[in-house]
Amino acid sequence: MTIPLRVGIIGAGGYSGTELLRILNRHPRVEITYLAGSHEEDTPWSKMRPYLPQQANLRIERFDAQECANRCDFVFVALPSGAAGQVIAKLWPWDHLRMIDLSGDLRLSGVDYQQWYGKEPCPQAILQEAVYGLTEWNRNQVRTARIVSNPGCYATATLLALRPLAKLEAALDKGLPIIVDAKSGVSGAGKKPAENLLLGELQENFYAYKVGRHQHTPEIERYSGLKRQVLMTTQLLPAVRGIFASLYIHMAEDLTDDEVYEAYQRAYAKEPFVMVQSVGEVPQLKHVRGSNRCHLGLRVDQRTHMLQIFSVIDNLQKGAAGQAVQNLNVMLEFGEAEALDAVPVYP
Amino acid sequence: MTIPLRVGIIGAGGYSGTELLRILNRHPRVEITYLAGSHEEDTPWSKMRPYLPQQANLRIERFDAQECANRCDFVFVALPSGAAGQVIAKLWPWDHLRMIDLSGDLRLSGVDYQQWYGKEPCPQAILQEAVYGLTEWNRNQVRTARIVSNPGCYATATLLALRPLAKLEAALDKGLPIIVDAKSGVSGAGKKPAENLLLGELQENFYAYKVGRHQHTPEIERYSGLKRQVLMTTQLLPAVRGIFASLYIHMAEDLTDDEVYEAYQRAYAKEPFVMVQSVGEVPQLKHVRGSNRCHLGLRVDQRTHMLQIFSVIDNLQKGAAGQAVQNLNVMLEFGEAEALDAVPVYP
Amino acid sequence: MTIPLRVGIIGAGGYSGTELLRILNRHPRVEITYLAGSHEEDTPWSKMRPYLPQQANLRIERFDAQECANRCDFVFVALPSGAAGQVIAKLWPWDHLRMIDLSGDLRLSGVDYQQWYGKEPCPQAILQEAVYGLTEWNRNQVRTARIVSNPGCYATATLLALRPLAKLEAALDKGLPIIVDAKSGVSGAGKKPAENLLLGELQENFYAYKVGRHQHTPEIERYSGLKRQVLMTTQLLPAVRGIFASLYIHMAEDLTDDEVYEAYQRAYAKEPFVMVQSVGEVPQLKHVRGSNRCHLGLRVDQRTHMLQIFSVIDNLQKGAAGQAVQNLNVMLEFGEAEALDAVPVYP
Amino acid sequence: MTIPLRVGIIGAGGYSGTELLRILNRHPRVEITYLAGSHEEDTPWSKMRPYLPQQANLRIERFDAQECANRCDFVFVALPSGAAGQVIAKLWPWDHLRMIDLSGDLRLSGVDYQQWYGKEPCPQAILQEAVYGLTEWNRNQVRTARIVSNPGCYATATLLALRPLAKLEAALDKGLPIIVDAKSGVSGAGKKPAENLLLGELQENFYAYKVGRHQHTPEIERYSGLKRQVLMTTQLLPAVRGIFASLYIHMAEDLTDDEVYEAYQRAYAKEPFVMVQSVGEVPQLKHVRGSNRCHLGLRVDQRTHMLQIFSVIDNLQKGAAGQAVQNLNVMLEFGEAEALDAVPVYP
Repeated sequence: MTIPLRVGIIGAGGYSGTELLRILNRHPRVEITYLAGSHEEDTPWSKMRPYLPQQANLRIERFDAQECANRCDFVFVALPSGAAGQVIAKLWPWDHLRMIDLSGDLRLSGVDYQQWYGKEPCPQAILQEAVYGLTEWNRNQVRTARIVSNPGCYATATLLALRPLAKLEAALDKGLPIIVDAKSGVSGAGKKPAENLLLGELQENFYAYKVGRHQHTPEIERYSGLKRQVLMTTQLLPAVRGIFASLYIHMAEDLTDDEVYEAYQRAYAKEPFVMVQSVGEVPQLKHVRGSNRCHLGLRVDQRTHMLQIFSVIDNLQKGAAGQAVQNLNVMLEFGEAEALDAVPVYP
Repeated sequence: MTIPLRVGIIGAGGYSGTELLRILNRHPRVEITYLAGSHEEDTPWSKMRPYLPQQANLRIERFDAQECANRCDFVFVALPSGAAGQVIAKLWPWDHLRMIDLSGDLRLSGVDYQQWYGKEPCPQAILQEAVYGLTEWNRNQVRTARIVSNPGCYATATLLALRPLAKLEAALDKGLPIIVDAKSGVSGAGKKPAENLLLGELQENFYAYKVGRHQHTPEIERYSGLKRQVLMTTQLLPAVRGIFASLYIHMAEDLTDDEVYEAYQRAYAKEPFVMVQSVGEVPQLKHVRGSNRCHLGLRVDQRTHMLQIFSVIDNLQKGAAGQAVQNLNVMLEFGEAEALDAVPVYP
Repeated sequence: MTIPLRVGIIGAGGYSGTELLRILNRHPRVEITYLAGSHEEDTPWSKMRPYLPQQANLRIERFDAQECANRCDFVFVALPSGAAGQVIAKLWPWDHLRMIDLSGDLRLSGVDYQQWYGKEPCPQAILQEAVYGLTEWNRNQVRTARIVSNPGCYATATLLALRPLAKLEAALDKGLPIIVDAKSGVSGAGKKPAENLLLGELQENFYAYKVGRHQHTPEIERYSGLKRQVLMTTQLLPAVRGIFASLYIHMAEDLTDDEVYEAYQRAYAKEPFVMVQSVGEVPQLKHVRGSNRCHLGLRVDQRTHMLQIFSVIDNLQKGAAGQAVQNLNVMLEFGEAEALDAVPVYP
Repeated sequence: MTIPLRVGIIGAGGYSGTELLRILNRHPRVEITYLAGSHEEDTPWSKMRPYLPQQANLRIERFDAQECANRCDFVFVALPSGAAGQVIAKLWPWDHLRMIDLSGDLRLSGVDYQQWYGKEPCPQAILQEAVYGLTEWNRNQVRTARIVSNPGCYATATLLALRPLAKLEAALDKGLPIIVDAKSGVSGAGKKPAENLLLGELQENFYAYKVGRHQHTPEIERYSGLKRQVLMTTQLLPAVRGIFASLYIHMAEDLTDDEVYEAYQRAYAKEPFVMVQSVGEVPQLKHVRGSNRCHLGLRVDQRTHMLQIFSVIDNLQKGAAGQAVQNLNVMLEFGEAEALDAVPVYP
């Protein structure tokens, strides 16, 4: 048996960090050797995480770069944007460390970051070294990367829906934006208490937020492979997990359902985590819940000359921790689906 | 005191029928004199409707046209499409009866009905007599109508969002369809048991249904006042009540947020049930729950030249029973808000 | 027309305060003249409360006792325990003010308050003047009270279930506690952000809290009319509104279902808000949602000699704001159901 | 590598059958070779079960005993009570088959079955051969059983809470029943459409059903190891998965929290699926969701001399399919946790 990879998680207390723990717990080649976070330093594991296997030696520490570097070969940074970049900058000097950042801090150019996030960007050297980790479309670069920038949840759902379109681009209308009407479960907003995330406020509710200014918009435009603007509306579902993106694209010349299906099937036939549903089938949020899968539904509306694509993922899995582990597997040349074989929890 | 209007409800067992009972229960000028439905003929009221005020004399009978005509001046038909038209045809000969149909049977031309509903349309004479009951935009015709065709729930939310646009039509792009990404609570699908409506299936779920072929599409195109096609996607929310419609319209020349706001404010300033939210505000499903209100949010995306409109209603109120009572109030020249002053149930 | 009562609400920003606004909005004899609360002083009403009728003159002010006394005849104090008592002590000197306190500050003796709430009790003079407002059982005292202490939500559901038992006490086992297994929607915990109240935490969840030490326990023991201890377990439902209490009482000699039903029917036959369900029927949370009603289900388990009582209320209505308005109506000799005729929102 | 066990599932279309498929999909020593059910014979797998790994060779057939016996070594019967017994009787003659029945048909004596289920019991020979599969407490008998009767979901949660009490029985009050106030997610009621299981009916709802006559009551009394009656109230939660049982037991002489904790810790310290929470901790439904775990919380209420136990499981896992696979693992001498290492899906 080989020596397991020593893995640390910075931000182990949030939903993405917790999901990383859930997934890695079953990873045969990984050992969790370091957890950092806030607020929970002295809580016993059985009280803090009764839903995770009880590991007496695990506790959440206050982040210390030297300590982290000593005890880890590989680090997941699962912190809010801004905080993540600072931690990465601190870990950067240790050459042996490979990292995956789950925040938005390494996804955009410095200029775009400043505009959409309203904060100081990371140093240019780090931004340049980071490889965008949309695994299915960037596998070779991910393999050799030292730092992977894990895609945003909305961006993952949308980009998996858009990337095969490059092959059909001639048929699309040039001047028009792609419309993405996206809906997310509330775990995407994290675990930090906020009035608008209370069950009392959200049950039997639905609404749009950050309309026209969601920071995943430039990320999608940057990596779509299409020369088109994107208008994305992000909306909050009264549900915990999942992203459901409905895309609308005007066609200049009509494609058939079958032409579209074949282009997508070609793109994803060998992918373990992306399923293209047959013509006439539509994906359901619940069909991917708790798994690293993405289901795509396709449809041409001949009447109005619109192409419709539906894309669903679990925001904490393929939209965050799942794809991060998938990227780790690629980076370390483990089996890509190692520890990611969870079957969706249905019902 | 005047003699109360004698009112009957056909289809009193479904969700729309129940909501009519809830609302009319507080109507000072109405007396429920006849209830028809299926399956519940011999159930005592206290067991059948423990959530409604206990009226010893009320029971649900099997529909009989003669009996109904004898005991009523006014009839609500709250039956599924197809069944509704047959009942209306039976009641049609009694001249003293005025009626509101909550189904889709009187909303389209015979040709369109056949195409989108896949059933035989009602006789042409009835279709011609029926007045479309989008109250805010058809008040004068509703006032004198003998038969009112109550709008569909998706159609109401969408048409209240679209009708003020006629004044701005010059600024809109001509060739493109209006995109309506609509989400509905599950009560819109009625009370009849079906696997896909079980809580076990819908909780933590979300998906599109009848994609590209929802029967409210031609209804919206017919009554929008715009010469444009509509592509509507109807989707099921894990919630009981409410419709949230997100509209996307490409502009040929850019409007400002204020221009749009003013056009809508002009249209609805005096309406008791339609509220136009200030620029920058977005409506929430829960803010209208249990009330007859419609909240509209407006936004111009300068970056992509798109106009966005958000429209929310309670599908059982403004989307069905509430608007039906509003129409009754107009038809009888009662106060238009009579019995409709319920404040949204929030939280 | 008579001059409306000038009413103030202290704590207008919380869920109970909001519910008071919703109810009083339709009260023909009341005018809201003063609102106090925190955090929202300068927010326009249309943004702060888009779900309430838009009243241009309403704003939420920082509490000032003199101002409140000048502008009000009647005050609802809808603040957390501790804060409520302080406000009441400040308003106490103005003789013309009558008040209803919705907190727990006036419900217990000073000694019990200190033990169960762990805070300093209100001055003894105030505690003595306060009348316990379980309306159905204390109507005469409420009528003439200057200060009413509105019962707790769990206490209301439980006491309405227990009070008729005094007539059957001989049949109950003496030495044993009454077991109350109570479940509450999350709005009972208020609107203040807390991790455990997030939808992400509560959806698909259920658990007990404050086990064995919920502060409504001594309130129930004090006012039950029975010489028995109560063991209450309070549990959080993944729902917004409602309390469902399941009571278990061991019988020394067996009663029949009919004997129990008759005792309860006698107690509540003339009450507008309490419905005793027929033998064999069980109440549902949703059957009272959004209304001031309490539904009671009764059952004798002959096999194990246990009496079971199920009691359901809406915690924000009969469990808080609804009962408070009911008490106002009694205190002012208005019709007791004035403004409280809302029919439960079902479905 | 050894030859995999050939496994069939009868009733593969229901929630328990689906959960068996989800779990066994990851079982390295099992091959699914036969699926029987109704209604779905000709549906392609990708449409019928898009949430399960796509296995081209799987389809659901109409049950045929000969076919089943030919293709299987081991059969799970996941059918409703009544239907299950008939299938077992048909498979009974094939000696090579070992079986686990997930229904209630083999859990009671014939007399009790007739009384509580109101149906004809299975032949006595089958009843006698069946071994009750509460794994933690019956492991040795399960190991050699040909037919295992898998416990009911409510019974599993309650019995895991009660069995360690045998060691403390002297301290319990003799004459009184044990009170079990149990709450279940709706998946326990299965997938068959019924009005009361619609999301429109259950969201924001809660109620008791089968009060005093739930068929798991005699099962608990039979296997508790205590000479006491049980009064169980079964209640429906607005949630999909999970059982939360609150138990109340009167003590004759007071135990301490620590004495109780130690007795439970002794009973379960080596069990992989049962976790006894520390004194002061209470279990949460969501902490076991999607896993085969049972969490127990313990508490002595010194004030009222009551022992309280809280027990939570996932009704489809430890309450049905999970425990069934655990039993298969014991019967075949596989690792007991094989394929059951799923970490709870939280949040």
